[in-house]
Order: sequence, then structure tokens, then C-alpha cells
Amino acid sequence: MNFQPYRSPSTGRPVRAVLFDTFGTVVDWRTGVAREVAAFAAAHGHTLDADAFADHWRALYQPAMDAIRSGQRGFTKLDTLHRENLDAALRHHGINPDQFSRETLEELNKSWHRLPPWPDSVEGLAAIRRHYIVGPLSNGNTSLLLDMARDAGLPWDVIIGSDMTGTYKPLPQAYLRTAEFLDLEPGEVMLAAAHNSDLQAAREAGLATAFVARPTEHGPGQAVDLAPEGDWNLVASSIPGLADRLGA
Amino acid sequence: MNFQPYRSPSTGRPVRAVLFDTFGTVVDWRTGVAREVAAFAAAHGHTLDADAFADHWRALYQPAMDAIRSGQRGFTKLDTLHRENLDAALRHHGINPDQFSRETLEELNKSWHRLPPWPDSVEGLAAIRRHYIVGPLSNGNTSLLLDMARDAGLPWDVIIGSDMTGTYKPLPQAYLRTAEFLDLEPGEVMLAAAHNSDLQAAREAGLATAFVARPTEHGPGQAVDLAPEGDWNLVASSIPGLADRLGA
Repeated sequence: MNFQPYRSPSTGRPVRAVLFDTFGTVVDWRTGVAREVAAFAAAHGHTLDADAFADHWRALYQPAMDAIRSGQRGFTKLDTLHRENLDAALRHHGINPDQFSRETLEELNKSWHRLPPWPDSVEGLAAIRRHYIVGPLSNGNTSLLLDMARDAGLPWDVIIGSDMTGTYKPLPQAYLRTAEFLDLEPGEVMLAAAHNSDLQAAREAGLATAFVARPTEHGPGQAVDLAPEGDWNLVASSIPGLADRLGA
Repeated sequence: MNFQPYRSPSTGRPVRAVLFDTFGTVVDWRTGVAREVAAFAAAHGHTLDADAFADHWRALYQPAMDAIRSGQRGFTKLDTLHRENLDAALRHHGINPDQFSRETLEELNKSWHRLPPWPDSVEGLAAIRRHYIVGPLSNGNTSLLLDMARDAGLPWDVIIGSDMTGTYKPLPQAYLRTAEFLDLEPGEVMLAAAHNSDLQAAREAGLATAFVARPTEHGPGQAVDLAPEGDWNLVASSIPGLADRLGA
């Protein structure tokens, strides 16, 4: 085979695995969550702004992980954090979560397992997979990422959930332990992400980096991550575009 | 969708994931290793019985893991154990491993990453995958199982290597931690294996069980595991046969 893998100038090594941030980069969490929240609210006779609810639920994500990153709290998987934050988001919207059964709330919590891919994701991942290992590098837990992959048809080779590394991005061990499971040097792994801060942390851990723009992740008025803010190895406006730049 | 998953009478639960022992059950390690050993010997001007070499190399596998299972030695991944055992197998066959470069021996060691699937494996896994999560439940490390999957075209949904559970079958934690990563009860997971002892341990850990006969795993004179030796939930002579019994 004459294929020459992309060689990162910053690491000097051929890239063997292209790993993807998932929420926002591969799947459209805002649309997916808002759709399920709207259906939930309608079914239970509540009125709410489903987009705002999705944004609020998502906004509680980083502070919940911060407690774990700082060591204040032991590793707790994302499904559990989402479930706790769901109670908080419901209360914030004036809805008492105690009126619902445990099963009803768990079902709504699983909306994070059923997020729609961006229209180009499946095709782009399949193209890259022909020449590189592809997988998520996400703060999601394994079962969440697995359900998402089966539901959305994401053709991952391997799923290394945050419950396997036992830590959350952007801590360096999240990137380094993932490379270790793959038996690759950090420079043989590329992170593809729509978030500059994630790429910065990946670069500091020694990974190659690719920015994939997702200018409507946060809805029509998005003000962050519209463009690359670092000298990332590759920049693309879609995953098939990234495949092209990787020669895949 | 009207599909009804198989419900194990021993656990009373619907099976959600069908996980496979790999060496012997999904891939033909003896043929694959012997082929690479024969090529290696020819390239270096040595004469040996490649089948006997493969058998000997494989025979060193259980004792190497025993030291880890007993706690005598910290968790060490299978690639490393195979590499140590390769030196021993070469010496046993009168070949001094020190005459070869590190790269040459590592390349031969990777023959365990390039094992051919049994002729029915890929088709059978693809059928089961339509209705169940499929993955390996193997003592192989993640990178070994990933290389094997890409090389052989095994359509796994997820790969949970022994380096992720940090333990080796047949210790109960190997089965239980795998179920935990999948967020499934042990009884929602089925182990499919060609080895009665593996199924016995899986059943003791609460998993559903399926025996898949592989009567030539050890060559034409195989004397073990020719038939089920326990009251396993399902019995099949191929993976497509197992797919039929699972209704997949």
C-alpha cells in the first residue's frame, strides 16, 4: 500500500489514530437534547424553551467535572453527572424533578446517548478510517459513547471512554492514557475537535491537532470557537474536509 | 421494531451484549502464528516445526498470566507476556533470541495481532450485531484486539481489552468489570466461547453463556473442548449458528 500517513510537523511522527471530541464535533448535542426535552415537556404538560434548557443542562457540565478534576470528588461517570444536572436544570426551569419516576428521568438523561451526528460526520469518519484508527476522545463514558455510535452509525474502531482513563479532559492524563491504550506515542495520535481549548490541552500533552469548525454548535448566535485560535496542524470545515487534508 | 432479544433462563434477563472469547473462538491463532513463524524461520535460515512452535508459544500463555492472577506480579499486558514467552519458545527450539534485533522480535510478536478469523466469524458477528452489542471479552490488550479487528475485519461495536479491566480471565472481575463498562447487569451479557472453562467462570460471574465448537483450534488431533461440558444457555457449531439461536 502506497498510502503515506500525515506526519505532524510539531511531533515529527506519522499519525496512526485520529480521535474525535464528540459533543459538538461529531454530534449536534443541542438539537438532540432540545428535541427530547421538548417532547418530554409536552408529554408532561410543561411549557419551556427547549433550546435554553439544553444550553443550561450543558452549562452545568464543566463545573460538575471540575470537582472531579480538582480531586474534590472521586471519578464519577458522565451519565451520573448529567443525571444530577438534570435535576438542577429542571428546578432552574421551575419544574420539580420529584414529580417524575426514576425511570422517566433516566430515559430523558439518555438523550445524551441518542444525539444526531452532523450531516457530514459518518461519511467523513468512514473515509478517515480507511487509513487511520478512528475513535472518540470524549468525556463521555463508554456506554454512552457506544449507544451513541450504534444509534448514529458512527464507524469507530475503538471506544475509550473517560471511565477507562478515569479522568476528564483537559487534564493531560485523559489524552496520554488514551494513547497508552492504543500503544501509540502521543505524537502518533491526532485530536480533532471544534474547541480550541481542547486542542490546546491535547497539544500540550504532545498530540497532533486538527480544528473542525462547528459554527452552529451553540445555535445561530454562536460567539465562540468560530475559527482556529492556535496554530493547529490541520484546519477543516467538516470531517470529510479533514479526511482530504489527511490524504484519506 | 419487534425483535425480542434472547432471554437467558439462568439469569431471567434479556441479553444486550454478546461478547466473544477471541483466541480460538473468533480467530485461528494456531494457523496464523505458525504461518508467521515459518516465514520467520525461513528468512533467518532456521528449521523448525512451526505448528509445534505455535503450540509451545501458546502453552506458555496460561502460566504467564497465573503469576498476575495470583498477585505475584502486577498487571502486565499480554503483548509483553507474549514477547517474554517468545524468547522462551525460541530457546526451547534451540534458537538464541539474542541474535535478532529488537524490531525483528517485536514484529514476530505482532503475529498475535494479525490472526486470521475462522471463515464464518465476520459474517456471524455482523448478523449478531444487528440486534446485540458485539465485542471481544479476551485476555488480549486493547491495541492487540484493535489491530486484529482492523486486519481481520471483525465488526466489533466496542473493544474492552484486559488492560482496561486490569485483570485476566477467568478471574470474576474480568467479566464483571466488562459488564460495568457497558452499564449492563452481568446477566445482560453473554459470553460466547469455544472453551468450557471460560464459560464456567463466566456463568459463576452471572453471565449468560454460549458454546461455539472449534474442533480444530489445536490442530487435527484436538482432544479438548470438542463438545459442551456444561449446561450452557446456547450451543452452536459456528458464529452464524449462534446468530440463528439468538434470533439475530
